[in-house]
Amino acid sequence: MLELGTTSLTIVSVIAVIAIVALVVAVLLRRQVLAADAGSPKMQEIAGAIEEGAQAYLRRQFRTLGVFAVVVFALLFLLPADLSVRIGRAVAFLFGAGFSAAIGYLGMSLAVRANVRVAAASEKPGGRAFGARIAFRSGGVVGMCVVGLGLLGAAGVVLVFRGDAPAVLEGFGFGAALLAMFMRVGGGIFTKAADVGADLVGKVEQGIPEDDPRNAATIADNVGDNVGDCAGMAADLFESYAVVLVASLILGTTALGEQGLVLPLLMTAIGAVVAGLGVVITRVRGSESGLTAINRGFYISAVAGVVLAAVVAVTYLPSSFADIEGVSADLADHTGNPQLIVVAAVVVGVALAGVILWLTGYFTGTESFPTRNVAATSRTGAATVVLSGIGVGFSSAVYTAGIIAAAICGVFLIAGGSVWLALFLVALAGCGLLTTVGVIVAMDTFGPISDNAQGVAEMSGEVGEEGAKVLTDLDAVGNTTKAVTKGIAIATAVLAATALFGSYADAVSSALEEVGAAGAQAADDVVAAMVAYDIISPITLVGVILGGATVFLFSGLAIDAVTRAAGAIVFEVRRQFREMPGIMTGKDRPDYARVVDICTKDSLRELATPGLLAAFAPIAVGFGLGVGPLAGFLAGTIGAGVLMAVFLANSGGAWDNAKKIVEDGHYGGKGSEAHEATVIGDTVGDPFKDTAGPAINPLIKVMNLVSLLIAPAVIQLSVPEDVNHGIRIAIALVAAGIAGFAVLTARRRGGRVDIDGGADERESLASESA
Amino acid sequence: MLELGTTSLTIVSVIAVIAIVALVVAVLLRRQVLAADAGSPKMQEIAGAIEEGAQAYLRRQFRTLGVFAVVVFALLFLLPADLSVRIGRAVAFLFGAGFSAAIGYLGMSLAVRANVRVAAASEKPGGRAFGARIAFRSGGVVGMCVVGLGLLGAAGVVLVFRGDAPAVLEGFGFGAALLAMFMRVGGGIFTKAADVGADLVGKVEQGIPEDDPRNAATIADNVGDNVGDCAGMAADLFESYAVVLVASLILGTTALGEQGLVLPLLMTAIGAVVAGLGVVITRVRGSESGLTAINRGFYISAVAGVVLAAVVAVTYLPSSFADIEGVSADLADHTGNPQLIVVAAVVVGVALAGVILWLTGYFTGTESFPTRNVAATSRTGAATVVLSGIGVGFSSAVYTAGIIAAAICGVFLIAGGSVWLALFLVALAGCGLLTTVGVIVAMDTFGPISDNAQGVAEMSGEVGEEGAKVLTDLDAVGNTTKAVTKGIAIATAVLAATALFGSYADAVSSALEEVGAAGAQAADDVVAAMVAYDIISPITLVGVILGGATVFLFSGLAIDAVTRAAGAIVFEVRRQFREMPGIMTGKDRPDYARVVDICTKDSLRELATPGLLAAFAPIAVGFGLGVGPLAGFLAGTIGAGVLMAVFLANSGGAWDNAKKIVEDGHYGGKGSEAHEATVIGDTVGDPFKDTAGPAINPLIKVMNLVSLLIAPAVIQLSVPEDVNHGIRIAIALVAAGIAGFAVLTARRRGGRVDIDGGADERESLASESA
Repeated sequence: MLELGTTSLTIVSVIAVIAIVALVVAVLLRRQVLAADAGSPKMQEIAGAIEEGAQAYLRRQFRTLGVFAVVVFALLFLLPADLSVRIGRAVAFLFGAGFSAAIGYLGMSLAVRANVRVAAASEKPGGRAFGARIAFRSGGVVGMCVVGLGLLGAAGVVLVFRGDAPAVLEGFGFGAALLAMFMRVGGGIFTKAADVGADLVGKVEQGIPEDDPRNAATIADNVGDNVGDCAGMAADLFESYAVVLVASLILGTTALGEQGLVLPLLMTAIGAVVAGLGVVITRVRGSESGLTAINRGFYISAVAGVVLAAVVAVTYLPSSFADIEGVSADLADHTGNPQLIVVAAVVVGVALAGVILWLTGYFTGTESFPTRNVAATSRTGAATVVLSGIGVGFSSAVYTAGIIAAAICGVFLIAGGSVWLALFLVALAGCGLLTTVGVIVAMDTFGPISDNAQGVAEMSGEVGEEGAKVLTDLDAVGNTTKAVTKGIAIATAVLAATALFGSYADAVSSALEEVGAAGAQAADDVVAAMVAYDIISPITLVGVILGGATVFLFSGLAIDAVTRAAGAIVFEVRRQFREMPGIMTGKDRPDYARVVDICTKDSLRELATPGLLAAFAPIAVGFGLGVGPLAGFLAGTIGAGVLMAVFLANSGGAWDNAKKIVEDGHYGGKGSEAHEATVIGDTVGDPFKDTAGPAINPLIKVMNLVSLLIAPAVIQLSVPEDVNHGIRIAIALVAAGIAGFAVLTARRRGGRVDIDGGADERESLASESA
Repeated sequence: MLELGTTSLTIVSVIAVIAIVALVVAVLLRRQVLAADAGSPKMQEIAGAIEEGAQAYLRRQFRTLGVFAVVVFALLFLLPADLSVRIGRAVAFLFGAGFSAAIGYLGMSLAVRANVRVAAASEKPGGRAFGARIAFRSGGVVGMCVVGLGLLGAAGVVLVFRGDAPAVLEGFGFGAALLAMFMRVGGGIFTKAADVGADLVGKVEQGIPEDDPRNAATIADNVGDNVGDCAGMAADLFESYAVVLVASLILGTTALGEQGLVLPLLMTAIGAVVAGLGVVITRVRGSESGLTAINRGFYISAVAGVVLAAVVAVTYLPSSFADIEGVSADLADHTGNPQLIVVAAVVVGVALAGVILWLTGYFTGTESFPTRNVAATSRTGAATVVLSGIGVGFSSAVYTAGIIAAAICGVFLIAGGSVWLALFLVALAGCGLLTTVGVIVAMDTFGPISDNAQGVAEMSGEVGEEGAKVLTDLDAVGNTTKAVTKGIAIATAVLAATALFGSYADAVSSALEEVGAAGAQAADDVVAAMVAYDIISPITLVGVILGGATVFLFSGLAIDAVTRAAGAIVFEVRRQFREMPGIMTGKDRPDYARVVDICTKDSLRELATPGLLAAFAPIAVGFGLGVGPLAGFLAGTIGAGVLMAVFLANSGGAWDNAKKIVEDGHYGGKGSEAHEATVIGDTVGDPFKDTAGPAINPLIKVMNLVSLLIAPAVIQLSVPEDVNHGIRIAIALVAAGIAGFAVLTARRRGGRVDIDGGADERESLASESA
């Protein structure tokens, strides 16, 4: 058991204070945002409706998830560990989940007030700069909360649990990741069901513009932006932050002892400082575009992060591994300079963020070859648009995965071949990447706020041409920042997952040590294969296949859920147009609330399946096949996960912007056949880029954390000679049963498909169709 | 070095004779098929045009690939091995490639003559049964050749090279797999470029039916069926057969010595007998559908295969492992009964074929929930059709991968936890699955023949209503058999790849033994990580990510190639309609040959990139990162490969049949908006199911074989103390450079995208668009 010295405790206390300061800054920034003009009564009414819908959704979501959290809280006690660790871990789980939820809620609640303020600002002189500032600062508040709460949680756990902190923090990270995953899935289904449904009836069938108040799904569409893009992304990035911290604390303690525990906290404290700096310095100068200002903010933050990291490393670490107290035996004779090595890893992380930013921009930007090519294929119809977008998605996934792989290889070389040091450095590179997280969250939140501002303006009809132009500009900036931050979120997820993968190995070897070599040798051949990490074993390969399969299944479920929910919205909006002919002439007001309600119910119903799958698949594989195949499973998950996440995000981004190219007047412009083809592409891309794709990030981490938590239990149930394999297999079967049941019922949820419309087979959707 | 006893040599000689008999049967069957009435002069003229186009394409393809084969032949000499092995392996490579090409050519050349005979038969009394028989028997000829040539090649190598046979056979399998991959990719691009191009202009723009002679792309479309579905699939299944044999000979020799070398040959000889049986007994009785007859043939063959396998196992093997001469040390005290174990593995393989057959039918059949659901989403437009089809693809990939994984786990349990025995049994399960290969090839070839027969009938205009009905029925049967054999081909590929993965491990451990433990210990940490199979090492994880990435890239390249080539066809067909207005009125004859020519040129140009990627990616990973990460790479390839292959095949199949459901009169029937939506879905699915998806099978095996071949060289260049790492890294960089160059130039091949139509930026496609 590691005992922390006074110096370490002092440093961690200072870090906790920094975290609190970050939260205070957030409160101040929030006050500044809310001080802006809140717009006309009509605008406020619309914004109020959006806020009401979003709050109602999140509250119901939290109620549902609360039950789930309590169950998991109880299950955590069943896992083998000291009682104090078990209690701490379960409590930390609740804190992690609670913080994740709080940040999501905060992001949403501020965004729904910021949007109307941006809309109001657009009409005033200097509105563009001022509007951009409100939008960015609102995101800044969320960003500061992400770093503040993340750091506070981690520092608090270290102060309370000292040497037990890594094990307890597993609970914190798990809570954060699990909640974030649910918010991503639920919010993602909500936002895209509403968006797709609104577009299919409004744009395609009725030919009315986006955000037209006659479309009953508009309010739901705007609510979705807030609960999906805004609350979901904030929770997701918080979770990445927490998980990277957790992994680096675990691996740091293994590799370097006490200093390895404190160092990652120091690195992320830098993130808090840098975030504050980034948010404050980002302001639009003169007539420059909002994007230029934001990019400047990002790059300045990145450079400041590297400089500060170098200062910290040189101040805190000695220049030789042998001088680090508590360094692991195999690192004691490492000839490298730890200061340089640590800084190099952080630089790799920061550089990775920069490269991904550029690469995502290249694949999804309107100016570059891939997206222009997708737009060009609209001349031969929707099928070629879909195919070329899928091609872009596949290629971009490969390049992004290749860059991330290169970063990991780079870190491996920096580590000089020591696997444990390399794993710790991967985690530190993740910390490096996340020094800019404050700015990234702000960039991302910019998107839904400016999107909503445009919606509010359009629906209120009170913003003039000048103001509308300003809002369109801001919206375009928001689209770009939203797309690039997705790339970064994925890169973070992969680094975090790789580090967690290392933590898993650490947990397995500790557990094997406890069971003792005698136990392992006494075990028979099957068990030996279960605990072997040998990648060549056929059941490890089975693990890899199943890991990839889980990612495919999860993506398919998320997309199917959107398809189903959007179908319900389409029928509802059609029904309103049919039954209230006054809507089209502006005489009747559509029933917005009913659409919001359908979205809410459907997303909450649909989010259970992917969630159960993520939680139970690793349990089934681990207890059923052993820790070796579970490692294979995780490797398969990470490999397929990064590829699938980028594929989904970037093909969606390319379709979105290909549509914009056509709407700008190319290939016939709006209303042409080419336009219709790109609208179909964009609709296909919606659940790709905003539901399934982003949810894969937390998915990967949830599965890694579950594996990390269960590894000791699996070994206790499989290695010793006197063990009862029945229990192990029973657990595997129950877990597989729960996941399988959830999946099979989801697929049937749409009801029977009624091809011929026989009255006895009629199901709700079919009966409402024309 | 293994010396073969007289008994073994006698058995192998008998097997060679069985192989020759199978080929003689093929010749007799071929004569029977050609004896049927060849139809009217007009029909013969059309069939002649198709034959001419197909022959021209294949001949040019073989010329192109010949150059490539010579280069590989030379490169094989560079790999470390005894001179006799090197010579043998290089020559065997040529034989493998030659046989693969010959079978593809044979399949094509017979199919183009069978199609017109089926069309002619349709008009006669009893035409349905007779037509089905011609189509099935033509496929039977190809099936008999597959088993005959595969078995003859393997037995010949064993007779000549004795104990060196496994190493030499690597060359045979590699040649077969490489050629098959090229034929799959090239043929797949050809057939779908023509099909998509024909549909986009003919069906969608001009509203003329499929196979209408006024469409300039019809002949090319029919040529494509023969060079893609027919030649490609035949070569693919031959390659699976050869590769499973190779892997099981390697693993069998390691596990059981001499008897392990002979046993797989015996099992596949059973396949030859069973194939003959299946082809002869399959005949339509009374008024039953062709499908019933074919399924009966399949199941009888499967049962016969199991029975014969049991007889062989009991006759040939002793009842205890200890009694097997040359059994490996760790198997000598295995308590299982080898007879039972072997039969159980074969049963797993045969059962797997049956389950996959059913599962594929479920996901893509017009009667089951998934496809009906896709059809139902056509009511909300093309976007929801595309999304729901993608959902079906993802889920079906997961179930199929899960079943295959379960089969591997089952074999692992049968092996009692011995990894090497398990690997051999996986290979034997592959042999079991392939006992039915003769019937499977026949089933698959049935598809393009009946499809073409309909095309010939439609174009000649000489088949009456009765005959047309018969041909439509046969075509529907062909669609189903084509879809289900794809599932089996993928299952075979996974088993073959898993077994090859084991052979790879075998090669690595032999090579490490040769280098000696001293060398390995002298090596530094980085090298130790390179040869470690530890799945937890970050660079092994990098290998997994890169393996998955290669599959994604390959799929993307194949789909992009079709999109590009189809675009060219669209512009050409549009040009012909524009410049020759007489085509629509039937006065002018379209220039079919020009479309065939464009398809030929484009597919040959496009096939190089995916081919180079497949060959060079493992070289780059192996020499660059080491044998451990290369194992990770292969695992990633297999995991992502099986999922992607099934996803692509089954989403494509579901879209195809969803269109059929609508065409049968549901949701508005032909010409409705729902129909248009499903046509878009079907077009998206075309390159999925017939280009990218099927090409992944040989891809996985090519990459495994390349890894197997280079493993000793990688170890020689990385482990010993006095080694020069420069050469290793140089090789990796050159390989990465070649693959990278091929990929980057392919993406740019479409030329600059001309958004605004400025004269200086004009590129060929844009300038021809309206």
